[in-house]
Amino acid sequence: MSPKITTELLKQLRQVMKNPKYVQEPVQAYIVPSGDAHQSEYIAPCDCRRAFISGFDGSAGTAIVTEQHAAMWTDGRYFLQAAHQMDSNWTLMKMGLKDTPTQEDWLVSVLPEGSKVGVDPFIIPADQWKRMSKALRSAGHDLVPVKDNLIDPIWTDCPQRPCKPLITLDLSYTGVSWRDKIVALRSKMAERKVMWFVVTALDEVAWLFNLRGSDVEYNPVFFAYAVIGMNTIRLFIDGDRMMDPGVREHLQLDSTLEPEFKIQVMPYGSILSELQDVGAGLSPKERVWLSDKASYALTEAIPKAYRYLTPYTPICIAKAVKNAVETEGMRRAHIKDAVALCELFNWLEKEVPKGTVTEIIAADKAEEFRSQQKDFVELSFATISSTGPNGAIIHYKPVPETNRTLSVNEIYLLDSGAQYKDGTTDVTRTMHFGTPSAYEKECFTYVLKGHIAVSAAIFPNGTKGHLLDSFARSALWDCGLDYLHGTGHGVGSFLNVHEGPCGISYKTFADEPLEAGMIVSDEPGYYEDGSFGIRIENVVLVIPAETKYNFKNRGSLTFEPLTLVPIQTKMIDVNLLTEKECNWVNEYHQKCREVVGAELERQGRHEALRWLLRETEPLGRVQ
Amino acid sequence: MSPKITTELLKQLRQVMKNPKYVQEPVQAYIVPSGDAHQSEYIAPCDCRRAFISGFDGSAGTAIVTEQHAAMWTDGRYFLQAAHQMDSNWTLMKMGLKDTPTQEDWLVSVLPEGSKVGVDPFIIPADQWKRMSKALRSAGHDLVPVKDNLIDPIWTDCPQRPCKPLITLDLSYTGVSWRDKIVALRSKMAERKVMWFVVTALDEVAWLFNLRGSDVEYNPVFFAYAVIGMNTIRLFIDGDRMMDPGVREHLQLDSTLEPEFKIQVMPYGSILSELQDVGAGLSPKERVWLSDKASYALTEAIPKAYRYLTPYTPICIAKAVKNAVETEGMRRAHIKDAVALCELFNWLEKEVPKGTVTEIIAADKAEEFRSQQKDFVELSFATISSTGPNGAIIHYKPVPETNRTLSVNEIYLLDSGAQYKDGTTDVTRTMHFGTPSAYEKECFTYVLKGHIAVSAAIFPNGTKGHLLDSFARSALWDCGLDYLHGTGHGVGSFLNVHEGPCGISYKTFADEPLEAGMIVSDEPGYYEDGSFGIRIENVVLVIPAETKYNFKNRGSLTFEPLTLVPIQTKMIDVNLLTEKECNWVNEYHQKCREVVGAELERQGRHEALRWLLRETEPLGRVQ
Repeated sequence: MSPKITTELLKQLRQVMKNPKYVQEPVQAYIVPSGDAHQSEYIAPCDCRRAFISGFDGSAGTAIVTEQHAAMWTDGRYFLQAAHQMDSNWTLMKMGLKDTPTQEDWLVSVLPEGSKVGVDPFIIPADQWKRMSKALRSAGHDLVPVKDNLIDPIWTDCPQRPCKPLITLDLSYTGVSWRDKIVALRSKMAERKVMWFVVTALDEVAWLFNLRGSDVEYNPVFFAYAVIGMNTIRLFIDGDRMMDPGVREHLQLDSTLEPEFKIQVMPYGSILSELQDVGAGLSPKERVWLSDKASYALTEAIPKAYRYLTPYTPICIAKAVKNAVETEGMRRAHIKDAVALCELFNWLEKEVPKGTVTEIIAADKAEEFRSQQKDFVELSFATISSTGPNGAIIHYKPVPETNRTLSVNEIYLLDSGAQYKDGTTDVTRTMHFGTPSAYEKECFTYVLKGHIAVSAAIFPNGTKGHLLDSFARSALWDCGLDYLHGTGHGVGSFLNVHEGPCGISYKTFADEPLEAGMIVSDEPGYYEDGSFGIRIENVVLVIPAETKYNFKNRGSLTFEPLTLVPIQTKMIDVNLLTEKECNWVNEYHQKCREVVGAELERQGRHEALRWLLRETEPLGRVQ
Repeated sequence: MSPKITTELLKQLRQVMKNPKYVQEPVQAYIVPSGDAHQSEYIAPCDCRRAFISGFDGSAGTAIVTEQHAAMWTDGRYFLQAAHQMDSNWTLMKMGLKDTPTQEDWLVSVLPEGSKVGVDPFIIPADQWKRMSKALRSAGHDLVPVKDNLIDPIWTDCPQRPCKPLITLDLSYTGVSWRDKIVALRSKMAERKVMWFVVTALDEVAWLFNLRGSDVEYNPVFFAYAVIGMNTIRLFIDGDRMMDPGVREHLQLDSTLEPEFKIQVMPYGSILSELQDVGAGLSPKERVWLSDKASYALTEAIPKAYRYLTPYTPICIAKAVKNAVETEGMRRAHIKDAVALCELFNWLEKEVPKGTVTEIIAADKAEEFRSQQKDFVELSFATISSTGPNGAIIHYKPVPETNRTLSVNEIYLLDSGAQYKDGTTDVTRTMHFGTPSAYEKECFTYVLKGHIAVSAAIFPNGTKGHLLDSFARSALWDCGLDYLHGTGHGVGSFLNVHEGPCGISYKTFADEPLEAGMIVSDEPGYYEDGSFGIRIENVVLVIPAETKYNFKNRGSLTFEPLTLVPIQTKMIDVNLLTEKECNWVNEYHQKCREVVGAELERQGRHEALRWLLRETEPLGRVQ
């Protein structure tokens, strides 16, 4: 990778920062965050303003440009990539290192007294605004909202905001109609005594209306907002997507409906002014519910006294608990996904020894097998196909410059998943196509022990996921090993592969308690820089657990693996497993055989079936 | 217990709330928190104002009195006790229950518009003030500081503030001189660019100056503040304690010293005005460091722009990491404590079958044996001596009304500890003097498995204690059981038995990472209402762990038990233990034999030695 030359661009941006056409008064610094107006994790090309101005296109980073300086804050995953992609105009600020200043401290140290710091109020979340504004104000500066994004005037070839057709999901996929979801939402609103709820996250809009889109790669969402009142529904969305007869029918736009279920369709761009009208028309005690991660612009539209902000919205929480129809869909999707992976691994086993399979070819082949499955829509994230030392790069994605050939001498790590109309998958398997070393097996087995410790854990109803994180690490810790990422994330149902409000991580304490029907990943790992990476990931469903006793009648929970792909027994050092762990592996493989085996049989994939049967032979324990 | 009659007292308080002699303008509500001006956990009798006004004398609770109402907020431990101790003037607000309003919400619901709510600014911590003040202001009320405490004028027989003689600790107990502690503190201050540090917690003052007191029961502290500048040391303390030649010598009050080590002794009551002077004399960029739990009064003395508030002070953090001399002292103290408990349990074994030993007698006997040990000062907390159903009351303390006789048919739980000049102890053992049931043994064994899981855990340097909490619960969770308290707390070195900033609890996320030299308790339990309580508690020292590998050169930690008292093997169901757990018990008991056995021998306590040898016979594992 050669760095992007940004000298001219920065010059132009600095002019715009003083140009009265764009700013009410000149700003001495301009912040360019990563996000979009919906605080999405994955963003559309038109929202990649930070990548445009700096050249650095990792998923996380914040650029700040002043009259003299240009600086980029990013975390440990991206230090190398950012250093490669940015030219000498930029200073890399390595977050997490002791001597790296915060953005606020840095601004205070470089800005002349009484400076204005500009930011797009639609991109910055309200909670971040508050923190930064406070820090700047206490040092005599001002954070100011700059309504028109200052990157846009200099980004002459900026791609258009996508506006792709919508997919409607009927009850056989969602289990609950959008009308019933509105009813449930309004009852939550009534409980909290709020009159309005503003839906700002794209996956929450999609979930609420049982619609999907493809405006953002990997995430089946579409650009829209919604404002739900006790008697009104407003959907803010652009394009002729509402002309589609299927969508009109689905949303009952042409039916005679009770007024409280009549959807008013409005232009995407009118959300702010509509919300300001709502704000202006509020009577005392009428509150408006927003996520505390909603943009500063939308939050400010509601006068402070009327705002009701929560870290997780009622939609976020309802969406996380899958109903029976969604759960069945997720099961189906995972069986199809397992079929594709059995095909892939069987193919790899034959092809890798020939020395012709690269990381990119393997990733493409995985997509090919998945796309043969019913209701396949797209991948759920960029495939991590990595062999040998590339496996140690946790967020690796093969590109021609790094593309390595799979061999019988290296560990291969594949973290991949897909969107099917009935569910979202995300699975990691670590394989060796030759003979793994004793050390590789040892590390793999510790990771497996951690995976099992979480998957088989029994815990009280109401336990938060972060309390399970150490179970995944205990076997590694015993030998002085560890991994530097969380253990699991929430997974959507034909929605975002990462979703809140639950997860399993030492880093999060604001997670909501786990409850039956939630779906998370279980993915401990071990990474040795320059050598190899190991990760074993299943998507698991929270289910009630039967226990001998029942303290305070609280009830207990455990996990059921939805992912049903063999864990390579060749990589396991059976002597390091307890009897219980050994049984877990054998029972898991027995289930893979039964469930996925039947589907391979049904699809007539006999060679892959033979591979599955061989790979799921019970472990023989050496005592 | 019959409730305290408070009708007259409340009438008087309501008069004082309107009396211009005490309040600038009338207050419509007055808050009476539990604490003292140092935010201590244990308080002196003169600070028990909430107990005086309400009758409820549990350790946690906040009273609020308005013109019409009187309400008491307390938590689940005290619902019963508070209900018994308070008369019908009071409404019990059960914290933690869904329908219980917060203090702020309740105030807003009962107060007339534009009310003033008074509170003693010395008693309320600054962070609580901020939260409450904000909530009241947004509802149109005002939280106002009432300088003179409004309970004092009606508390005619209020005991005097204690002012007991001080104990000086030389280097053989502390390992570090107070001068060196001041030097280290000033270097932390320089690092954070602060000019002043205000010591408000009593144990921090005591630790800093290597002094101890007995103003508060169980905690060897004395009433004092200190203000440390880069060149000055001010100690605020009352009484003629500074006339004691030993203390003068220890603090070098009469020596010719470099000015920066010269201690200026000032009256305890002058802290506020002195701090206001400091606040008034600050140049720009001169900051003053305070705990964010310091009182509102002291915090307000420093103008906001000059305050530097942290949850844990540098003294709190330094105090938590015991040096080699302190660690050796703690070891000695625990050996002496074990001797006392071997004597006690041997005695109980003989006496309990006679039916003459009550909970109170057993507690007194424990104190008697402890007091025979060298350097014994006092108990470190009120002994929890509980048998049968009383054992299920987690914070039980036997009183004549509840005093139960120990028998061969019930489980006995003893949670006790002492202050020795060389260290603080805190140990819980659960014993059966007859034949425990299979169920009792089963529950005991799960608790033991949890205890071992924490004690034997190996974890990376920098791990926070709360990440270990689930290890203690896992065996209980597997069977649907749990316990409703944290697993461990920091323990002082001849100081408070509960201290920050580390601990092991699912409830805390703001704990500081564990490091070698820290000392915490490991005390999982299981409680069955109306039947029995089980808890197994050791005090453990954080030590470096040897591991096979060393990921990122971070190093690993584990625990060494300081408590060396046999765990009753009669209560263990050996079949529920793994081989590793069995070995842990045997090795622990072997160490008890060697270390405590030698001391029993030295002290000529032969009968207790025989008891120890019998109780530490290795477990035979039935396979």
